[in-house]
Amino acid sequence: MKRALAFVLLTLLPLPALGQATGDLGLVIERATGSLLLIDRSDRAALGRIEGLGDLSHASMTYSPDERFAYVFGRDGGLSKVDLIDRKVVARTLQAGNSIGGAISDDGRLVAVSNYEPGGVKVFDAETLAPVADIPAAGKTIGLVDLPGRRFAWTVWDTGEVFVGDFSAPAPQVTMIGNAGKNPFDAVLTADAHTYLVGLFGEKGVTAFDLWSDAPQPEKFLTDYGKTGEDMPVYKMPHLQGWAFTEGQFALPAVGRHEVLWVDSETHAERGTTPVHGQPVFIIAQPASPYVWVNFATPLNDTVQVIDSRDHSVVATLTPGKAILHMEFAPRGAEVWISSRDDNKVLIYDTRSREKLAEIAAQSPSGIFFTARAHQPGL
Amino acid sequence: MKRALAFVLLTLLPLPALGQATGDLGLVIERATGSLLLIDRSDRAALGRIEGLGDLSHASMTYSPDERFAYVFGRDGGLSKVDLIDRKVVARTLQAGNSIGGAISDDGRLVAVSNYEPGGVKVFDAETLAPVADIPAAGKTIGLVDLPGRRFAWTVWDTGEVFVGDFSAPAPQVTMIGNAGKNPFDAVLTADAHTYLVGLFGEKGVTAFDLWSDAPQPEKFLTDYGKTGEDMPVYKMPHLQGWAFTEGQFALPAVGRHEVLWVDSETHAERGTTPVHGQPVFIIAQPASPYVWVNFATPLNDTVQVIDSRDHSVVATLTPGKAILHMEFAPRGAEVWISSRDDNKVLIYDTRSREKLAEIAAQSPSGIFFTARAHQPGL
Repeated sequence: MKRALAFVLLTLLPLPALGQATGDLGLVIERATGSLLLIDRSDRAALGRIEGLGDLSHASMTYSPDERFAYVFGRDGGLSKVDLIDRKVVARTLQAGNSIGGAISDDGRLVAVSNYEPGGVKVFDAETLAPVADIPAAGKTIGLVDLPGRRFAWTVWDTGEVFVGDFSAPAPQVTMIGNAGKNPFDAVLTADAHTYLVGLFGEKGVTAFDLWSDAPQPEKFLTDYGKTGEDMPVYKMPHLQGWAFTEGQFALPAVGRHEVLWVDSETHAERGTTPVHGQPVFIIAQPASPYVWVNFATPLNDTVQVIDSRDHSVVATLTPGKAILHMEFAPRGAEVWISSRDDNKVLIYDTRSREKLAEIAAQSPSGIFFTARAHQPGL
Repeated sequence: MKRALAFVLLTLLPLPALGQATGDLGLVIERATGSLLLIDRSDRAALGRIEGLGDLSHASMTYSPDERFAYVFGRDGGLSKVDLIDRKVVARTLQAGNSIGGAISDDGRLVAVSNYEPGGVKVFDAETLAPVADIPAAGKTIGLVDLPGRRFAWTVWDTGEVFVGDFSAPAPQVTMIGNAGKNPFDAVLTADAHTYLVGLFGEKGVTAFDLWSDAPQPEKFLTDYGKTGEDMPVYKMPHLQGWAFTEGQFALPAVGRHEVLWVDSETHAERGTTPVHGQPVFIIAQPASPYVWVNFATPLNDTVQVIDSRDHSVVATLTPGKAILHMEFAPRGAEVWISSRDDNKVLIYDTRSREKLAEIAAQSPSGIFFTARAHQPGL
């Protein structure tokens, strides 16, 4: 019997994840293998791999308010719920043919997914992934974000229409709040949930909606912003999720040009331009600092530049590795974690010295997502 | 043998704290009993009580980056390390005669405490609470905050001197960066770690230091701000930790007056005044909204007011209970948790409807601290 007891003790006790606090965890998308790497920020280490996520060649995720679960949106239309404590996929639904992103409601009860095929937005119970609402649209939906009060906003590529959906009552209320313009390619919400910014591809300009207003109106600015026929080809559509908001400015990636544009966040007047190494993909503010970090589209994607938002000057140019796809900051800004896809590594840099501190093996890493995102509106 | 196995399974499995995600946890200071109430934001519930914290009649806390540990600073000079997973005090040191607050370094390795008796700052290893550095001062230290790069800033009440301590190398480097003025009573750091604001008691005015600058200079503003001989007595010194930063403004509690003052965060020019119910204690921005919530000093402390930062108007006046001591928002703003000391309750309000959703029994609750604070500079 002693042997039996010892066996039980051995099989029960060494579960790796007992008593795991979740504040410094994160997940790295391994795009080629459809897997996630669970990472620990304090230990600068990988804790394990979670597999079976489907096609993650273009994927993003959001976290439950308790940081226990990640909701992963895959290119194949798969919505997967991943348990960070038990380190496995606990629910998965192929909810569309092609999805491009999603969001979780501020109370953590609903997960919304924006889809390309078919278009529209689907809303799921965050606990079970049971369908709750299916909002059709006249085309592909982009720029889906969470708003306070169990609401979401999204935009339709084909029509330019912007919607706010309120899911606080049993019957959802969906309102068209205005037209952003021709072929909006992405949209983003400022951290204070005040301004919803929509980038246009079919015409020049960016359109802002004041979501604190009871009747938001589209306000177009930077009307010489965008792709022109003369420009270089656009190698990669920049992500507006990577727009930085710093020092009363928006830092925008110029579409198809080697430039970062600075716009006053109150007046929407242009404040300056920074010539950079390539076509910007992500422009991300280093927390608790005046700096933004920028990565670039292929074939210039071995480089990262750091820009001072006060004078718009490039203060550092780093070449951390091959195919730099994403950067994620420790929430108080001490470190930045950088995915180098073709080196199969995540690189950890000190933001003060801008020296490499450590690296972690990963399979074709792309997006890096720390759990602190659970506490930020619009992420 | 089956019975023995069943016994082992029963004793091993139901440990209460296994697999606890920590993102939606919090602690409430129970000031009269020296205890902490562990709370779960998603379940709107108390999970348990942790005792033996000493004198918590004036106390605050900060969290480790992984959200597993809280460091509690008590009035008796006690520094206690509390494990949220195992729900107990795991280390405690009586490090001074009277401490008033502290901070944790951005990498989570060091905890600093600011003391009244004796003055100065003591720094401890966050793992063991072993002493690391003892920085004497010419008086009581106030306004201790963490800065990026394993640094802290603090101010000395008796001399007005402001210091930055850099603990990134083995030997700490402490630099006096300037003099704030006569008898600074508290100081606070903006969320972007840009501006360190020092409120003065011995003279009128507020002093700002630009901590992004290599050589910060004191810049005094609002020089008609502060206590005058003609004013009402100051029933409770306002907390600058409760200063709100919203819409490009600082919202400041008028010392001794029934007013909230609005100051432009760039120019430091006064933008307006809001007459309010009493002497403001905490002025806290509701995340993802234009609103700030204000509570008041005794004897008018049964009331909470909500002010719109756009036009400075009071949009709601609530009387949630007796002796409202603190308010803490869910990090994405859906709810506010309010401690009502003399009702022995924590009240949970929906921020959109401003209706009460639930309440939780607590013994003389004062400060409420959600773990999401782990990810904010200066908290």
